Amino acid sequence: MRNIKLTIEYDGKDYNGWQKQPNKLNIQGEIERAIQTVTGKEVELIGSGRTDAGVHAVAQVANFKIDSDFPIEKMAIAINSQLKGSIRVQKAEEVEENFHSRYNCHKKTYQYVIDNSEQGTALYRNHTYHVPQPLNLSAMQQAVNYLIGEHDFSSFKSSGTSSKSSVRTIYDAKILKEGEKVAIVLTGNGFLYNMVRIIAGTLVEIGKGEKTPEEMKQILEAKDRSLAGKTLPSQALFLMNVSY
Amino acid sequence: MRNIKLTIEYDGKDYNGWQKQPNKLNIQGEIERAIQTVTGKEVELIGSGRTDAGVHAVAQVANFKIDSDFPIEKMAIAINSQLKGSIRVQKAEEVEENFHSRYNCHKKTYQYVIDNSEQGTALYRNHTYHVPQPLNLSAMQQAVNYLIGEHDFSSFKSSGTSSKSSVRTIYDAKILKEGEKVAIVLTGNGFLYNMVRIIAGTLVEIGKGEKTPEEMKQILEAKDRSLAGKTLPSQALFLMNVSY
Repeated sequence: MRNIKLTIEYDGKDYNGWQKQPNKLNIQGEIERAIQTVTGKEVELIGSGRTDAGVHAVAQVANFKIDSDFPIEKMAIAINSQLKGSIRVQKAEEVEENFHSRYNCHKKTYQYVIDNSEQGTALYRNHTYHVPQPLNLSAMQQAVNYLIGEHDFSSFKSSGTSSKSSVRTIYDAKILKEGEKVAIVLTGNGFLYNMVRIIAGTLVEIGKGEKTPEEMKQILEAKDRSLAGKTLPSQALFLMNVSY
Repeated sequence: MRNIKLTIEYDGKDYNGWQKQPNKLNIQGEIERAIQTVTGKEVELIGSGRTDAGVHAVAQVANFKIDSDFPIEKMAIAINSQLKGSIRVQKAEEVEENFHSRYNCHKKTYQYVIDNSEQGTALYRNHTYHVPQPLNLSAMQQAVNYLIGEHDFSSFKSSGTSSKSSVRTIYDAKILKEGEKVAIVLTGNGFLYNMVRIIAGTLVEIGKGEKTPEEMKQILEAKDRSLAGKTLPSQALFLMNVSY
Protein backbone atom coordinates (compact mmCIF):
# COMPACT_ATOMS: atom_id res chain seq x y z
CA MET A 1 0.00 0.00 0.00
CA ARG A 2 1.25 3.46 -0.86
CA ASN A 3 0.84 6.25 1.67
CA ILE A 4 -0.06 9.63 0.14
CA LYS A 5 0.19 12.97 1.96
CA LEU A 6 -1.96 15.85 0.74
CA THR A 7 -1.60 19.54 1.53
CA ILE A 8 -5.01 21.14 1.12
CA GLU A 9 -6.32 24.69 0.94
CA TYR A 10 -10.03 25.32 1.47
CA ASP A 11 -12.61 28.01 1.91
CA GLY A 12 -14.77 26.71 4.74
CA LYS A 13 -17.76 28.93 4.00
CA ASP A 14 -19.98 26.36 2.34
CA TYR A 15 -18.90 23.32 4.39
CA ASN A 16 -19.93 21.81 7.70
CA GLY A 17 -16.29 21.50 8.65
CA TRP A 18 -13.58 18.96 7.85
CA GLN A 19 -15.12 15.84 9.34
CA LYS A 20 -17.25 13.38 7.43
CA GLN A 21 -20.90 13.45 8.50
CA PRO A 22 -23.89 11.97 6.77
CA ASN A 23 -26.03 14.38 4.72
CA LYS A 24 -23.80 17.36 5.45
CA LEU A 25 -21.33 18.79 2.99
CA ASN A 26 -17.86 18.33 4.48
CA ILE A 27 -14.31 18.59 3.23
CA GLN A 28 -13.04 15.13 4.14
CA GLY A 29 -15.96 13.46 2.37
CA GLU A 30 -15.60 15.62 -0.74
CA ILE A 31 -11.92 14.75 -1.13
CA GLU A 32 -12.49 11.04 -0.47
CA ARG A 33 -15.16 11.07 -3.18
CA ALA A 34 -12.78 12.83 -5.60
CA ILE A 35 -10.00 10.32 -4.89
CA GLN A 36 -12.39 7.46 -5.52
CA THR A 37 -13.55 8.95 -8.82
CA VAL A 38 -9.96 9.42 -9.97
CA THR A 39 -8.41 6.15 -8.77
CA GLY A 40 -11.42 3.85 -8.51
CA LYS A 41 -10.43 3.06 -4.90
CA GLU A 42 -12.31 3.80 -1.72
CA VAL A 43 -9.91 5.39 0.78
CA GLU A 44 -10.01 6.78 4.30
CA LEU A 45 -8.58 10.27 4.41
CA ILE A 46 -6.96 11.06 7.78
CA GLY A 47 -6.74 14.78 8.54
CA SER A 48 -4.26 16.37 10.96
CA GLY A 49 -7.38 17.29 12.92
CA ARG A 50 -10.86 18.62 12.37
CA THR A 51 -11.67 22.15 11.48
CA ASP A 52 -15.13 23.37 12.44
CA ALA A 53 -17.90 24.49 10.15
CA GLY A 54 -16.89 27.65 8.32
CA VAL A 55 -13.20 27.52 9.27
CA HIS A 56 -10.70 27.89 6.41
CA ALA A 57 -7.36 26.24 5.76
CA VAL A 58 -4.36 27.61 3.94
CA ALA A 59 -2.53 24.30 4.41
CA GLN A 60 -4.40 21.45 6.09
CA VAL A 61 -2.53 18.13 5.92
CA ALA A 62 -4.12 14.71 5.40
CA ASN A 63 -2.99 11.25 4.28
CA PHE A 64 -4.51 8.09 2.86
CA LYS A 65 -3.31 4.59 2.00
CA ILE A 66 -4.05 3.27 -1.42
CA ASP A 67 -3.30 0.26 -3.57
CA SER A 68 -3.02 2.02 -6.92
CA ASP A 69 -0.23 2.96 -9.33
CA PHE A 70 -1.79 6.32 -10.14
CA PRO A 71 1.20 8.63 -10.87
CA ILE A 72 1.91 10.91 -7.91
CA GLU A 73 2.83 13.90 -10.07
CA LYS A 74 -0.65 13.92 -11.63
CA MET A 75 -2.59 13.23 -8.46
CA ALA A 76 -3.21 16.80 -7.22
CA ILE A 77 -4.53 18.06 -10.53
CA ALA A 78 -6.64 14.91 -11.03
CA ILE A 79 -8.26 15.17 -7.58
CA ASN A 80 -8.84 18.89 -8.09
CA SER A 81 -10.63 18.18 -11.37
CA GLN A 82 -13.30 16.40 -9.27
CA LEU A 83 -13.66 19.13 -6.63
CA LYS A 84 -15.34 22.50 -6.51
CA GLY A 85 -12.98 25.49 -6.54
CA SER A 86 -13.46 26.00 -2.79
CA ILE A 87 -11.16 23.01 -2.11
CA ARG A 88 -7.74 22.75 -3.76
CA VAL A 89 -5.14 20.06 -3.19
CA GLN A 90 -1.94 22.10 -3.41
CA LYS A 91 0.47 19.19 -3.11
CA ALA A 92 0.38 15.38 -3.23
CA GLU A 93 3.47 13.46 -2.18
CA GLU A 94 4.32 9.86 -1.43
CA VAL A 95 5.48 9.39 2.18
CA GLU A 96 6.76 6.47 4.25
CA GLU A 97 4.29 3.84 5.33
CA ASN A 98 4.09 4.84 8.99
CA PHE A 99 3.37 8.55 8.44
CA HIS A 100 0.09 9.50 10.15
CA SER A 101 -1.32 13.02 9.71
CA ARG A 102 -2.85 13.18 13.16
CA TYR A 103 -0.50 11.18 15.38
CA ASN A 104 2.73 12.57 13.89
CA CYS A 105 1.65 16.23 13.98
CA HIS A 106 4.03 18.31 16.13
CA LYS A 107 2.74 21.83 15.71
CA LYS A 108 -0.15 23.69 14.23
CA THR A 109 -0.53 27.37 13.50
CA TYR A 110 -3.92 29.08 13.45
CA GLN A 111 -4.64 32.67 12.50
CA TYR A 112 -7.69 34.74 13.45
CA VAL A 113 -8.14 37.84 11.28
CA ILE A 114 -9.83 40.98 12.60
CA ASP A 115 -10.90 43.75 10.24
CA ASN A 116 -10.25 46.81 12.37
CA SER A 117 -11.41 49.40 9.83
CA GLU A 118 -14.09 51.86 10.84
CA GLN A 119 -16.74 50.87 8.29
CA GLY A 120 -15.72 47.27 7.65
CA THR A 121 -14.43 45.76 4.44
CA ALA A 122 -16.71 44.68 1.60
CA LEU A 123 -14.14 42.62 -0.28
CA TYR A 124 -12.83 40.52 2.61
CA ARG A 125 -15.98 40.36 4.72
CA ASN A 126 -16.20 36.57 4.45
CA HIS A 127 -12.64 36.08 5.72
CA THR A 128 -12.53 38.56 8.59
CA TYR A 129 -14.33 39.59 11.79
CA HIS A 130 -15.16 43.28 12.02
CA VAL A 131 -14.22 45.27 15.11
CA PRO A 132 -14.74 48.99 14.45
CA GLN A 133 -13.42 50.20 17.82
CA PRO A 134 -9.72 51.07 18.18
CA LEU A 135 -7.72 48.12 19.53
CA ASN A 136 -4.76 48.40 21.90
CA LEU A 137 -2.45 45.94 20.21
CA SER A 138 0.29 46.05 22.81
CA ALA A 139 -2.24 45.18 25.53
CA MET A 140 -3.38 42.26 23.36
CA GLN A 141 0.22 41.11 22.87
CA GLN A 142 0.91 41.37 26.61
CA ALA A 143 -2.22 39.30 27.32
CA VAL A 144 -1.49 36.58 24.80
CA ASN A 145 2.04 36.18 26.18
CA TYR A 146 0.48 34.69 29.34
CA LEU A 147 -0.77 31.77 27.24
CA ILE A 148 2.67 30.69 26.03
CA GLY A 149 3.81 27.42 27.57
CA GLU A 150 2.04 24.31 28.83
CA HIS A 151 -1.28 25.10 30.49
CA ASP A 152 -4.70 23.68 31.22
CA PHE A 153 -6.82 25.66 28.75
CA SER A 154 -10.23 24.68 30.21
CA SER A 155 -11.25 28.35 30.30
CA PHE A 156 -10.89 28.46 26.52
CA LYS A 157 -12.80 25.41 25.40
CA SER A 158 -16.42 24.98 24.50
CA SER A 159 -18.37 22.19 26.09
CA GLY A 160 -18.84 19.18 23.87
CA THR A 161 -15.08 18.60 23.62
CA SER A 162 -14.33 14.91 23.35
CA SER A 163 -10.66 15.20 24.37
CA LYS A 164 -9.85 13.93 27.86
CA SER A 165 -7.14 16.41 28.75
CA SER A 166 -7.38 20.17 28.45
CA VAL A 167 -3.61 20.58 28.73
CA ARG A 168 -1.97 21.99 25.61
CA THR A 169 1.27 23.81 24.87
CA ILE A 170 1.37 27.11 23.03
CA TYR A 171 4.81 27.74 21.54
CA ASP A 172 4.24 31.12 20.00
CA ALA A 173 1.56 33.81 20.13
CA LYS A 174 1.66 37.02 18.12
CA ILE A 175 -0.56 39.99 17.37
CA LEU A 176 0.30 41.25 13.89
CA LYS A 177 -0.97 44.36 12.14
CA GLU A 178 -1.17 44.62 8.36
CA GLY A 179 -2.95 47.70 7.10
CA GLU A 180 -6.32 47.72 8.85
CA LYS A 181 -6.20 44.01 9.58
CA VAL A 182 -5.08 42.59 12.92
CA ALA A 183 -4.08 38.92 12.98
CA ILE A 184 -3.89 36.77 16.09
CA VAL A 185 -1.39 34.02 15.27
CA LEU A 186 -1.11 31.04 17.62
CA THR A 187 1.23 28.06 17.27
CA GLY A 188 0.76 25.08 19.56
CA ASN A 189 0.89 21.32 19.82
CA GLY A 190 -2.87 21.19 19.58
CA PHE A 191 -6.00 23.22 20.23
CA LEU A 192 -9.22 22.44 22.10
CA TYR A 193 -12.69 22.83 20.63
CA ASN A 194 -13.20 26.53 19.79
CA MET A 195 -10.02 27.43 21.71
CA VAL A 196 -8.62 29.91 19.17
CA ARG A 197 -12.00 31.59 18.73
CA ILE A 198 -12.49 31.98 22.50
CA ILE A 199 -8.94 33.31 22.95
CA ALA A 200 -9.65 35.75 20.09
CA GLY A 201 -12.89 36.86 21.78
CA THR A 202 -11.04 37.47 25.03
CA LEU A 203 -8.25 39.36 23.26
CA VAL A 204 -10.74 41.65 21.52
CA GLU A 205 -12.21 42.60 24.92
CA ILE A 206 -8.69 43.32 26.15
CA GLY A 207 -7.90 45.31 22.99
CA LYS A 208 -11.00 47.45 23.55
CA GLY A 209 -10.01 48.04 27.18
CA GLU A 210 -12.95 46.10 28.63
CA LYS A 211 -10.52 43.73 30.33
CA THR A 212 -6.89 44.24 31.41
CA PRO A 213 -4.05 42.12 29.99
CA GLU A 214 -3.52 40.64 33.46
CA GLU A 215 -7.06 39.26 33.42
CA MET A 216 -5.96 36.84 30.70
CA LYS A 217 -3.65 35.20 33.26
CA GLN A 218 -6.43 35.09 35.87
CA ILE A 219 -8.90 33.61 33.38
CA LEU A 220 -6.36 30.95 32.34
CA GLU A 221 -5.69 29.99 35.96
CA ALA A 222 -9.38 29.90 36.91
CA LYS A 223 -10.12 27.07 34.41
CA ASP A 224 -13.61 28.50 34.03
CA ARG A 225 -15.09 29.04 30.57
CA SER A 226 -17.57 31.60 31.84
CA LEU A 227 -14.79 34.09 32.61
CA ALA A 228 -13.35 34.21 29.09
CA GLY A 229 -14.69 36.26 26.17
CA LYS A 230 -17.21 35.09 23.64
CA THR A 231 -16.52 32.58 20.87
CA LEU A 232 -15.90 34.69 17.77
CA PRO A 233 -17.34 33.56 14.41
CA SER A 234 -15.62 30.84 12.38
CA GLN A 235 -15.31 32.79 9.13
CA ALA A 236 -12.17 34.67 10.27
CA LEU A 237 -10.25 31.57 11.39
CA PHE A 238 -7.57 29.93 9.24
CA LEU A 239 -5.52 26.79 9.80
CA MET A 240 -2.24 28.11 8.42
CA ASN A 241 0.27 25.33 8.83
CA VAL A 242 0.77 21.82 10.22
CA SER A 243 4.33 20.69 11.07
CA TYR A 244 5.76 17.16 11.34
CA MET B 1 -27.83 72.06 -1.80
CA ARG B 2 -24.95 70.22 -0.20
CA ASN B 3 -22.62 68.18 -2.39
CA ILE B 4 -21.47 64.89 -0.81
CA LYS B 5 -18.57 62.80 -2.06
CA LEU B 6 -18.52 59.09 -1.21
CA THR B 7 -15.59 56.69 -1.42
CA ILE B 8 -17.00 53.20 -1.88
CA GLU B 9 -15.63 49.67 -1.69
CA TYR B 10 -17.60 46.83 -3.23
CA ASP B 11 -17.47 43.18 -4.10
CA GLY B 12 -18.97 43.05 -7.59
CA LYS B 13 -19.76 39.34 -7.54
CA ASP B 14 -23.50 39.59 -6.94
CA TYR B 15 -24.14 42.80 -8.89
CA ASN B 16 -24.86 43.64 -12.51
CA GLY B 17 -22.27 46.38 -12.35
CA TRP B 18 -22.32 49.95 -11.09
CA GLN B 19 -24.98 51.43 -13.33
CA LYS B 20 -28.64 51.63 -12.48
CA GLN B 21 -30.79 49.28 -14.57
CA PRO B 22 -34.37 48.21 -14.01
CA ASN B 23 -34.84 44.75 -12.43
CA LYS B 24 -31.10 44.10 -12.10
CA LEU B 25 -29.22 44.39 -8.85
CA ASN B 26 -26.71 47.21 -9.25
CA ILE B 27 -24.46 49.20 -6.98
CA GLN B 28 -25.59 52.71 -7.87
CA GLY B 29 -29.24 51.81 -7.26
CA GLU B 30 -28.51 50.10 -3.96
CA ILE B 31 -26.66 53.11 -2.59
CA GLU B 32 -29.30 55.58 -3.83
CA ARG B 33 -31.94 53.47 -2.06
CA ALA B 34 -29.88 53.45 1.15
CA ILE B 35 -29.39 57.25 1.03
CA GLN B 36 -33.13 57.72 0.56
CA THR B 37 -33.93 55.45 3.52
CA VAL B 38 -31.50 57.34 5.74
CA THR B 39 -32.22 60.92 4.67
CA GLY B 40 -35.72 60.68 3.24
CA LYS B 41 -34.48 62.34 0.04
CA GLU B 42 -34.32 60.93 -3.45
CA VAL B 43 -30.87 61.65 -4.90
CA GLU B 44 -28.96 60.95 -8.09
CA LEU B 45 -25.63 59.32 -7.34
CA ILE B 46 -22.99 60.18 -9.95
CA GLY B 47 -20.15 57.67 -10.17
CA SER B 48 -16.65 58.40 -11.52
CA GLY B 49 -17.62 55.90 -14.20
CA ARG B 50 -19.31 52.54 -14.57
CA THR B 51 -17.80 49.29 -13.57
CA ASP B 52 -19.10 46.22 -15.38
CA ALA B 53 -20.97 43.26 -13.90
CA GLY B 54 -18.72 41.37 -11.48
CA VAL B 55 -15.98 44.02 -11.31
CA HIS B 56 -14.89 45.06 -7.80
CA ALA B 57 -13.86 48.41 -6.38
CA VAL B 58 -11.44 49.18 -3.59
CA ALA B 59 -12.23 52.88 -3.89
CA GLN B 60 -14.88 53.97 -6.35
CA VAL B 61 -15.84 57.64 -6.02
CA ALA B 62 -19.34 59.06 -6.42
CA ASN B 63 -21.18 62.24 -5.42
CA PHE B 64 -24.73 63.43 -4.91
CA LYS B 65 -26.49 66.71 -4.15
CA ILE B 66 -28.91 66.81 -1.29
CA ASP B 67 -31.04 69.28 0.61
CA SER B 68 -30.67 67.78 4.07
CA ASP B 69 -28.88 68.63 7.29
CA PHE B 70 -27.95 64.99 8.00
CA PRO B 71 -24.61 65.17 9.87
CA ILE B 72 -21.72 64.30 7.55
CA GLU B 73 -19.76 62.41 10.23
CA LYS B 74 -22.62 59.94 10.64
CA MET B 75 -23.44 59.55 6.98
CA ALA B 76 -21.16 56.63 6.03
CA ILE B 77 -22.24 54.43 8.93
CA ALA B 78 -25.91 55.32 8.40
CA ILE B 79 -25.82 54.48 4.68
CA ASN B 80 -23.92 51.24 5.42
CA SER B 81 -26.60 50.20 7.88
CA GLN B 82 -28.99 50.02 4.91
CA LEU B 83 -26.64 48.07 2.62
CA LYS B 84 -25.52 44.47 2.38
CA GLY B 85 -21.93 43.81 3.47
CA SER B 86 -20.80 43.57 -0.16
CA ILE B 87 -20.99 47.38 -0.46
CA ARG B 88 -19.30 49.64 2.09
CA VAL B 89 -19.12 53.41 2.03
CA GLN B 90 -15.64 53.97 3.44
CA LYS B 91 -15.80 57.75 3.54
CA ALA B 92 -18.40 60.51 3.19
CA GLU B 93 -17.23 64.11 2.89
CA GLU B 94 -18.79 67.41 2.00
CA VAL B 95 -17.23 68.95 -1.11
CA GLU B 96 -17.64 72.19 -3.00
CA GLU B 97 -20.75 72.65 -5.09
CA ASN B 98 -19.12 72.22 -8.49
CA PHE B 99 -17.34 68.93 -7.74
CA HIS B 100 -18.45 66.25 -10.24
CA SER B 101 -17.23 62.65 -9.83
CA ARG B 102 -17.11 61.93 -13.54
CA TYR B 103 -16.18 65.24 -15.15
CA ASN B 104 -13.49 66.16 -12.62
CA CYS B 105 -11.79 62.75 -12.59
CA HIS B 106 -8.14 63.04 -13.69
CA LYS B 107 -6.82 59.54 -13.28
CA LYS B 108 -8.04 56.05 -12.54
CA THR B 109 -6.08 52.99 -11.52
CA TYR B 110 -7.30 49.49 -12.29
CA GLN B 111 -5.71 46.24 -11.19
CA TYR B 112 -6.16 42.81 -12.76
CA VAL B 113 -5.06 39.96 -10.47
CA ILE B 114 -3.76 36.67 -11.87
CA ASP B 115 -3.40 33.62 -9.62
CA ASN B 116 -0.28 32.02 -11.08
CA SER B 117 -0.14 29.03 -8.72
CA GLU B 118 -0.06 25.55 -10.21
CA GLN B 119 -3.30 24.24 -8.69
CA GLY B 120 -5.16 27.52 -8.20
CA THR B 121 -6.26 29.13 -4.96
CA ALA B 122 -9.40 28.08 -3.08
CA LEU B 123 -9.54 31.08 -0.77
CA TYR B 124 -9.14 33.85 -3.36
CA ARG B 125 -10.78 32.12 -6.33
CA ASN B 126 -13.53 34.76 -6.59
CA HIS B 127 -11.02 37.62 -6.78
CA THR B 128 -8.42 36.19 -9.17
CA TYR B 129 -8.03 34.63 -12.61
CA HIS B 130 -6.10 31.39 -12.63
CA VAL B 131 -3.21 30.89 -15.05
CA PRO B 132 -1.31 27.71 -14.13
CA GLN B 133 1.41 28.07 -16.78
CA PRO B 134 4.63 29.93 -15.93
CA LEU B 135 4.48 33.58 -16.94
CA ASN B 136 7.41 35.59 -18.25
CA LEU B 137 6.86 38.76 -16.24
CA SER B 138 9.61 40.78 -17.88
CA ALA B 139 8.12 40.07 -21.30
CA MET B 140 4.75 41.23 -19.93
CA GLN B 141 6.32 44.41 -18.52
CA GLN B 142 8.09 45.12 -21.82
CA ALA B 143 4.79 44.66 -23.67
CA VAL B 144 2.72 46.87 -21.40
CA ASN B 145 5.31 49.66 -21.68
CA TYR B 146 4.22 50.12 -25.32
CA LEU B 147 0.80 51.21 -24.06
CA ILE B 148 2.08 54.12 -21.99
CA GLY B 149 1.18 57.49 -23.50
CA GLU B 150 -1.72 58.78 -25.60
CA HIS B 151 -2.98 56.20 -28.09
CA ASP B 152 -6.05 55.08 -29.97
CA PHE B 153 -6.95 51.91 -28.04
CA SER B 154 -9.50 50.57 -30.58
CA SER B 155 -7.74 47.17 -30.52
CA PHE B 156 -8.56 46.89 -26.83
CA LYS B 157 -12.23 47.75 -26.71
CA SER B 158 -15.29 45.59 -26.99
CA SER B 159 -17.98 46.56 -29.42
CA GLY B 160 -20.96 48.19 -27.82
CA THR B 161 -18.86 51.08 -26.54
CA SER B 162 -20.84 54.27 -26.46
CA SER B 163 -17.83 56.61 -26.28
CA LYS B 164 -17.06 58.49 -29.49
CA SER B 165 -13.29 58.55 -29.23
CA SER B 166 -11.04 55.57 -28.56
CA VAL B 167 -8.10 57.80 -27.65
CA ARG B 168 -6.98 57.47 -24.05
CA THR B 169 -3.77 58.17 -22.14
CA ILE B 170 -2.08 55.57 -19.98
CA TYR B 171 0.25 57.20 -17.47
CA ASP B 172 1.63 54.13 -15.77
CA ALA B 173 1.60 50.38 -16.39
CA LYS B 174 3.19 47.83 -14.07
CA ILE B 175 3.39 44.07 -13.69
CA LEU B 176 3.77 43.28 -9.98
CA LYS B 177 4.43 39.92 -8.36
CA GLU B 178 3.33 39.17 -4.81
CA GLY B 179 3.72 35.55 -3.77
CA GLU B 180 1.96 33.54 -6.46
CA LYS B 181 -0.18 36.46 -7.56
CA VAL B 182 0.65 38.64 -10.54
CA ALA B 183 -1.06 42.02 -10.73
CA ILE B 184 -1.41 44.12 -13.86
CA VAL B 185 -1.75 47.71 -12.65
CA LEU B 186 -2.81 50.38 -15.14
CA THR B 187 -3.28 54.08 -14.46
CA GLY B 188 -4.87 56.25 -17.12
CA ASN B 189 -7.18 59.18 -17.78
CA GLY B 190 -9.94 56.76 -18.69
CA PHE B 191 -10.55 53.27 -20.02
CA LEU B 192 -12.72 51.95 -22.85
CA TYR B 193 -15.30 49.18 -22.48
CA ASN B 194 -13.46 45.99 -21.37
CA MET B 195 -10.10 47.67 -22.13
CA VAL B 196 -8.27 46.45 -19.01
CA ARG B 197 -9.61 42.91 -19.40
CA ILE B 198 -8.56 42.75 -23.09
CA ILE B 199 -5.11 44.16 -22.29
CA ALA B 200 -4.84 41.54 -19.51
CA GLY B 201 -5.82 38.78 -21.94
CA THR B 202 -3.18 39.94 -24.41
CA LEU B 203 -0.55 40.17 -21.66
CA VAL B 204 -1.27 36.61 -20.49
CA GLU B 205 -0.64 35.35 -24.05
CA ILE B 206 2.63 37.28 -24.07
CA GLY B 207 3.54 35.94 -20.62
CA LYS B 208 2.98 32.37 -21.82
CA GLY B 209 5.15 33.01 -24.90
CA GLU B 210 2.29 32.71 -27.36
CA LYS B 211 2.91 36.27 -28.51
CA THR B 212 6.06 38.41 -28.38
CA PRO B 213 6.17 41.70 -26.42
CA GLU B 214 6.63 43.54 -29.73
CA GLU B 215 3.29 42.22 -30.93
CA MET B 216 1.61 44.42 -28.31
CA LYS B 217 2.89 47.46 -30.23
CA GLN B 218 1.68 46.02 -33.56
CA ILE B 219 -1.74 45.20 -32.11
CA LEU B 220 -2.06 48.72 -30.67
CA GLU B 221 -1.14 50.31 -34.01
CA ALA B 222 -3.46 48.06 -36.05
CA LYS B 223 -6.59 49.36 -34.23
CA ASP B 224 -8.16 45.94 -34.77
CA ARG B 225 -9.86 44.16 -31.87
CA SER B 226 -9.48 40.76 -33.52
CA LEU B 227 -5.68 40.86 -33.12
CA ALA B 228 -5.69 41.29 -29.33
CA GLY B 229 -6.14 38.55 -26.74
CA LYS B 230 -9.40 37.46 -25.23
CA THR B 231 -11.42 39.44 -22.70
CA LEU B 232 -10.55 37.93 -19.32
CA PRO B 233 -13.30 37.43 -16.70
CA SER B 234 -14.53 40.34 -14.59
CA GLN B 235 -14.00 38.72 -11.17
CA ALA B 236 -10.26 39.53 -11.10
CA LEU B 237 -10.64 43.23 -11.95
CA PHE B 238 -10.52 45.95 -9.28
CA LEU B 239 -11.02 49.70 -9.58
CA MET B 240 -8.30 50.72 -7.14
CA ASN B 241 -8.29 54.49 -7.09
CA VAL B 242 -9.84 57.59 -8.66
CA SER B 243 -7.89 60.86 -8.52
CA TYR B 244 -9.14 64.44 -8.74
